[in-house]
Amino acid sequence: MSTVYTGNKEYFPGIGKIGYEGPASDNPLSFKFYDENKIVAGKSMKEHLRFAVAYWHTMTATGADPFGAGTIEREWNSNSDPLAAAEEKADAAFEFISKLGAPYYCFHDVDAAPDADSVSDYESNVAAVGDMLLQRQKATGIKLLWNTANLFSHPRYMNGAATNPDFRVLARGAAQIKAMLDLNVKLGGENYVFWGGREGYTQLFNTDMKRELEHMARFLEIARDYGRRIGFTGTFLIEPKPMEPSKHQYDSDAAAVIGFLKTYGLDGDFKLNIEGNHATLAGKSFAHDLQVAADAGLLGSIDANRGDPQNGWDTDQFPTDVYDAVSAMLVVLGNSGLHTGGLNFDAHIRRNSTDLEDLFHAHIGGMDSFALALEIAQTIMDRGLVKRYRDARYENFNSGTGARFEKGELTLEELRNIAAENKDIPRISGKQELIENLINQIMFSR
Amino acid sequence: MSTVYTGNKEYFPGIGKIGYEGPASDNPLSFKFYDENKIVAGKSMKEHLRFAVAYWHTMTATGADPFGAGTIEREWNSNSDPLAAAEEKADAAFEFISKLGAPYYCFHDVDAAPDADSVSDYESNVAAVGDMLLQRQKATGIKLLWNTANLFSHPRYMNGAATNPDFRVLARGAAQIKAMLDLNVKLGGENYVFWGGREGYTQLFNTDMKRELEHMARFLEIARDYGRRIGFTGTFLIEPKPMEPSKHQYDSDAAAVIGFLKTYGLDGDFKLNIEGNHATLAGKSFAHDLQVAADAGLLGSIDANRGDPQNGWDTDQFPTDVYDAVSAMLVVLGNSGLHTGGLNFDAHIRRNSTDLEDLFHAHIGGMDSFALALEIAQTIMDRGLVKRYRDARYENFNSGTGARFEKGELTLEELRNIAAENKDIPRISGKQELIENLINQIMFSR
Amino acid sequence: MSTVYTGNKEYFPGIGKIGYEGPASDNPLSFKFYDENKIVAGKSMKEHLRFAVAYWHTMTATGADPFGAGTIEREWNSNSDPLAAAEEKADAAFEFISKLGAPYYCFHDVDAAPDADSVSDYESNVAAVGDMLLQRQKATGIKLLWNTANLFSHPRYMNGAATNPDFRVLARGAAQIKAMLDLNVKLGGENYVFWGGREGYTQLFNTDMKRELEHMARFLEIARDYGRRIGFTGTFLIEPKPMEPSKHQYDSDAAAVIGFLKTYGLDGDFKLNIEGNHATLAGKSFAHDLQVAADAGLLGSIDANRGDPQNGWDTDQFPTDVYDAVSAMLVVLGNSGLHTGGLNFDAHIRRNSTDLEDLFHAHIGGMDSFALALEIAQTIMDRGLVKRYRDARYENFNSGTGARFEKGELTLEELRNIAAENKDIPRISGKQELIENLINQIMFSR
Amino acid sequence: MSTVYTGNKEYFPGIGKIGYEGPASDNPLSFKFYDENKIVAGKSMKEHLRFAVAYWHTMTATGADPFGAGTIEREWNSNSDPLAAAEEKADAAFEFISKLGAPYYCFHDVDAAPDADSVSDYESNVAAVGDMLLQRQKATGIKLLWNTANLFSHPRYMNGAATNPDFRVLARGAAQIKAMLDLNVKLGGENYVFWGGREGYTQLFNTDMKRELEHMARFLEIARDYGRRIGFTGTFLIEPKPMEPSKHQYDSDAAAVIGFLKTYGLDGDFKLNIEGNHATLAGKSFAHDLQVAADAGLLGSIDANRGDPQNGWDTDQFPTDVYDAVSAMLVVLGNSGLHTGGLNFDAHIRRNSTDLEDLFHAHIGGMDSFALALEIAQTIMDRGLVKRYRDARYENFNSGTGARFEKGELTLEELRNIAAENKDIPRISGKQELIENLINQIMFSR
Repeated sequence: MSTVYTGNKEYFPGIGKIGYEGPASDNPLSFKFYDENKIVAGKSMKEHLRFAVAYWHTMTATGADPFGAGTIEREWNSNSDPLAAAEEKADAAFEFISKLGAPYYCFHDVDAAPDADSVSDYESNVAAVGDMLLQRQKATGIKLLWNTANLFSHPRYMNGAATNPDFRVLARGAAQIKAMLDLNVKLGGENYVFWGGREGYTQLFNTDMKRELEHMARFLEIARDYGRRIGFTGTFLIEPKPMEPSKHQYDSDAAAVIGFLKTYGLDGDFKLNIEGNHATLAGKSFAHDLQVAADAGLLGSIDANRGDPQNGWDTDQFPTDVYDAVSAMLVVLGNSGLHTGGLNFDAHIRRNSTDLEDLFHAHIGGMDSFALALEIAQTIMDRGLVKRYRDARYENFNSGTGARFEKGELTLEELRNIAAENKDIPRISGKQELIENLINQIMFSR
Repeated sequence: MSTVYTGNKEYFPGIGKIGYEGPASDNPLSFKFYDENKIVAGKSMKEHLRFAVAYWHTMTATGADPFGAGTIEREWNSNSDPLAAAEEKADAAFEFISKLGAPYYCFHDVDAAPDADSVSDYESNVAAVGDMLLQRQKATGIKLLWNTANLFSHPRYMNGAATNPDFRVLARGAAQIKAMLDLNVKLGGENYVFWGGREGYTQLFNTDMKRELEHMARFLEIARDYGRRIGFTGTFLIEPKPMEPSKHQYDSDAAAVIGFLKTYGLDGDFKLNIEGNHATLAGKSFAHDLQVAADAGLLGSIDANRGDPQNGWDTDQFPTDVYDAVSAMLVVLGNSGLHTGGLNFDAHIRRNSTDLEDLFHAHIGGMDSFALALEIAQTIMDRGLVKRYRDARYENFNSGTGARFEKGELTLEELRNIAAENKDIPRISGKQELIENLINQIMFSR
Repeated sequence: MSTVYTGNKEYFPGIGKIGYEGPASDNPLSFKFYDENKIVAGKSMKEHLRFAVAYWHTMTATGADPFGAGTIEREWNSNSDPLAAAEEKADAAFEFISKLGAPYYCFHDVDAAPDADSVSDYESNVAAVGDMLLQRQKATGIKLLWNTANLFSHPRYMNGAATNPDFRVLARGAAQIKAMLDLNVKLGGENYVFWGGREGYTQLFNTDMKRELEHMARFLEIARDYGRRIGFTGTFLIEPKPMEPSKHQYDSDAAAVIGFLKTYGLDGDFKLNIEGNHATLAGKSFAHDLQVAADAGLLGSIDANRGDPQNGWDTDQFPTDVYDAVSAMLVVLGNSGLHTGGLNFDAHIRRNSTDLEDLFHAHIGGMDSFALALEIAQTIMDRGLVKRYRDARYENFNSGTGARFEKGELTLEELRNIAAENKDIPRISGKQELIENLINQIMFSR
Repeated sequence: MSTVYTGNKEYFPGIGKIGYEGPASDNPLSFKFYDENKIVAGKSMKEHLRFAVAYWHTMTATGADPFGAGTIEREWNSNSDPLAAAEEKADAAFEFISKLGAPYYCFHDVDAAPDADSVSDYESNVAAVGDMLLQRQKATGIKLLWNTANLFSHPRYMNGAATNPDFRVLARGAAQIKAMLDLNVKLGGENYVFWGGREGYTQLFNTDMKRELEHMARFLEIARDYGRRIGFTGTFLIEPKPMEPSKHQYDSDAAAVIGFLKTYGLDGDFKLNIEGNHATLAGKSFAHDLQVAADAGLLGSIDANRGDPQNGWDTDQFPTDVYDAVSAMLVVLGNSGLHTGGLNFDAHIRRNSTDLEDLFHAHIGGMDSFALALEIAQTIMDRGLVKRYRDARYENFNSGTGARFEKGELTLEELRNIAAENKDIPRISGKQELIENLINQIMFSR
């Protein structure tokens, strides 16, 4: 993707294609660490990381927060004709993505297309915008990582969509899903995402949680069946998040979603889209929730961002903490990669980052951090030291009675007898501090 | 249970049987609200609440914390001969429980019996103490709600028990489980509990989480099979808790445990023991985790306590917040009661509550709060207002297309078409503030 | 205040004056516990509680949150002419407040008056709306508890107002403060509030915290001098809040604000406006921050609301937890009341509470809860038990060497010698569980 | 300090002096980044960082936690004769510190000397151990950064020391302080620390917070006067911490302590000892609390550790997150260094780090991280980019009306007039993302 796309108008004048210039460069509009064609363990950085730009944050975010109106105005959002504005936004998006050099993008319906009250108006908006996007995909080679329907922003979804107590609202949500699945197939999307933005409750007293969860399962099943019927062959993804915007969200973390998928027999088609900030809001580390998903064979894709350790809500910051990124990439490499998934920047610039170029700085920082992390994680794996410490800890399950235990060949009495024979069990250090040192050594002496 | 038990020595002199004296009483050593024989909706308070005294906190807690040694000395813990001390502790326990009038108790192996390095010494201690307990159960009519093996305090369990990387430690844990299951059957226990005290990890880098979870499942399966073989017919219980003492605990909340049980096919024999403070540490309300368990048909028993809303660890305070207790009892009543489970006080007096009588105050407060909560919850249900608000919200799933959706008879296209016909969906208020008012009205005008 | 105000149009048709009907009433639009003329310890409930309705939440809130547009539409916000809309809003506000029977109201400039880019347009809007408010105050007897300038919502304040690195923005904020102080004097306001909505930072690296805090002090000093010059004789109030919307807010809690006021010599004119939800976000209980302020002689006024114990941001819920309210009222009664301050409902109905009457339910719930709390707190004080336990703990500072210590008459050597003589210091129980029981007994047996 | 000290016995056999071997070394028992004599900006790393080993964690920690007994046994803690054990511990400590090459140590009274019930026994233990320490200081050149009295572990302090409601306990605490100040002068300590381990409360109802805080101020005043009288010329330090072990701690964060010192006129002699994990428990970043202290001219010393972002208590981990360390060192360098203070490792190895050498790994990791951070922070300052962005933001306060505002020469009316003239104030980006990128670039391309 070496070419830069511009539509009728250049929205980021003065900024060209962002190139790799290496760590010594003084140019803030260059990559210091992300060299897309550099080969790491047999694959290019680009193939490993599969970066995607998020339409909602990157193209539509205004910096608004609960305490103030938007601070950021974008030329491409100023046209009063909705479809013309959508086209200008698409032009700006593909210009941005092509200048950045990300291979993928992703969007909610209403990020890209004008919303409408009537289903048919909504559908015709979606169809029109779908054509615009397809055309620009072809022109640039940029691909669709995933799309999704926004079933949380419109007032009608104030009590949820799939779990709304009002069937009419649920049906309206289904109409959006249908349109988005249709569009996904048209655009060759590799995944389709469900984020249960308001699938949860604000008060337990007025909520029939069991019935709501059954509705959610039924809803997903119906959507899945439709998707498969129309030829969607990609991965369905569910994105966990606790406690926001609902007081309690049903898909609160990776373990909760896996339990839900297994309860309702949906784990054959659905995988997880893990977000860093959502994991930490759930009291889990980013890597923990990635590993939980990977261990279940259900790691689908990643919303690469980070939260603020002192703030208790979704701050959606760009992922520039290289420790977090290294921990994440160790899971990804251990999972043999992201397969149909990718690294999507579900992150927005701060409210007071009002320069147009701040959008580039933010994405460059995220991409550089994960590029660094990929190399560091691969080095950790190549050196093998950390893995050696880990594997050695489980050694006595590899043979003898330990192995028989794993196979289910021992009874409780037999375990008791084994214990009776083992008089002095040594305490074996976990070597946590040593491992932290080894990782710091690799990180800071590449 | 009108009689008071004393052994060779009275450990709580000057305190007799705690009686119900009603809300006007000035006697702090009386119940103001818990009247054990009072009938609420066809059952006595005692039958509804099934209170159990926790041996570990009540008989063995010293007030020690990470910043200081114990402040509380108990006469029954002073004998230097371990088995004699165990007998004195049993005497004190049954005196306390009989004076309090709780129908149940529960314990970990090492609360009641002296621990030992060798399996056989441990087993003979357990057997001896088992006789002591059985004798006192018979003398008092106090029953065993549940017992469990402490697989987290001994240094050998520093890396877990079922999930310990060292098979020898796992086997040692199994020996304790075996002894406790044997004892449970002997004592007629109604449940058996697993709390994965250190089943989790302190560092992900040195941990093979998948293998550890498979070990845990295998371990539970083996224990279950043994229990059933020896005639245990009660309920196996798993108690969720996040982030303490391990950095990440595997059984982090109700949803995580349910997912685990379903993944490994253990949900036929195992239910959940939900603790208030553990739920809130997991970012869930107490009632939420109870409801999640109840909805899955897996609500087993309750550790009735509460945490501190400003402190980030398990403070295990006595449950005197009547709001929490009302929310909990609404779930319990909706579950048709606790069945084999009960309300166990997994709570300890504060470090600076050093008077002997403080133990009584604490338990009286917890029992009175749940008795109040039982009556309030039943009144809420009797008045039906809250339920009426809740049920009305789901009305349009009871018939027509909503009902067909629930049965799985609609496709995504059909849902889309239904949406296309519903032009103006009204916004239906959740009435949250009104419901809060109704509950306060009932609470404060009984 | 027995009359109901309506302007040209009745905005809450079908809802009359909310009366006290007592706890047995089935009418949700009545007070169950707040009987404004009921005398508690020599003062009416109305005089004790000094309730104020918050213009911003009650008249302008739409239910919008970071994940969705507003769900709540108000007739009085629909006029496209800004000043006409302001007058309709004022009519609706005074109708609402008079029907509710709250004696006070409070507002930010832009809640009540249309904002404007130019200072003079802004000032003329403020002047026009000031006349409208004054007229309605006279018509109803409703008084102004406090007003304030909103220096956080407009994009210009994205980096703060008093602490903005750009002097021009600071000056613009000063213009709003001037207008609001002028208006306060005109309307006979009893207090004037500063909430440092964005006085804090999002990144420490780009922030000169010291200089910013010096600017804040200077700014307050200048505003104070102006206020006193134009005849404002009420109390200046600062409202602490941590971590939202800035990553770190300077006025993070009561202790931080007191330290700031003392450092810059502002504690003669400024007191604190303590909000429940802000205290808990700071890791303090509501009562703690109230007590910290009261102990410093700086308790000014109260934002009566509550947060969600599982959600990490300012949920601003109506204060219906009677425990919290009792704890708060104990501090208020111990402070001999709120003096010029009051109890302002800085609380909003939930996003899905879309019925017009929900506004009434919410306020009724808050007022009833604090009325209950007033009576309970007064009963606790009258019974004297809790105070007796507390005072007894400090007894040995009342005379002898303890009293000499308090007066500063002892050296470290003398203290050491006193210690050397006290061989066995008994451990004195804090009686925490007993005190909790006593409070529950009073709460639930009135 | 090139020599290694060993007493009668070598406690760390097989481990010699830890040397600097650089980032390529495979030897885990070497420094990769800390080269004590390397000059950074005119001072050696050793002079900049002033590392101190904490006697309590390093020499006495057993790995015990609220859920289990200690896992770590040390040969030097096994002697049954208390004074002999103290001497063996001192030998082990000085061997460890000298092998590590840290220039300082610090201790609580009862870490080093046997505690005793009687004041005179306690004092004679302290005197005896004081001689042992002095002798070893002379032998090694290792110096005392600070000492302190442990007024929280002994049961007598369950309700605090300076704020204990029982004067006798307060006096007993004073006796320990006196002994420790005497010993400090004898050992040439550079600072003296107060950590109010239990100065706070567990329940507000039974607490007279105002009286307790006045006692605390009086207590500090008396101790200060004594210290100055006996010739202590160093810095008195107070260490903030919120919510643990008390429910609310009085010295909750830097701002709270500064407010307290100013209220009671103690800010001439007392400075702050800031701990990373304590700051984050208070909802502040480590760097924030350091900067707050530095801005007040009160940054005294640092407890270099870190907490776990998902665990809500003081995990006291070794500080190996280089981001945190860089942020800290930027404040330190901006403060022209730590003056009499230092970087003390208030950190302990994990419960399952049971190898003797783990103690070395942990300290090496902490020292290497801060050495890295020193160099990175200095590079950030040398390049000047970050500072240039910061300073530019405040430019218009450097002259003109902005400068007049700073001097207090403007009234509110004048500010209003300035605002009226400034029509279009541009929004100036904070450049947060760019600054994060610049810091990552420097960190990962040294």
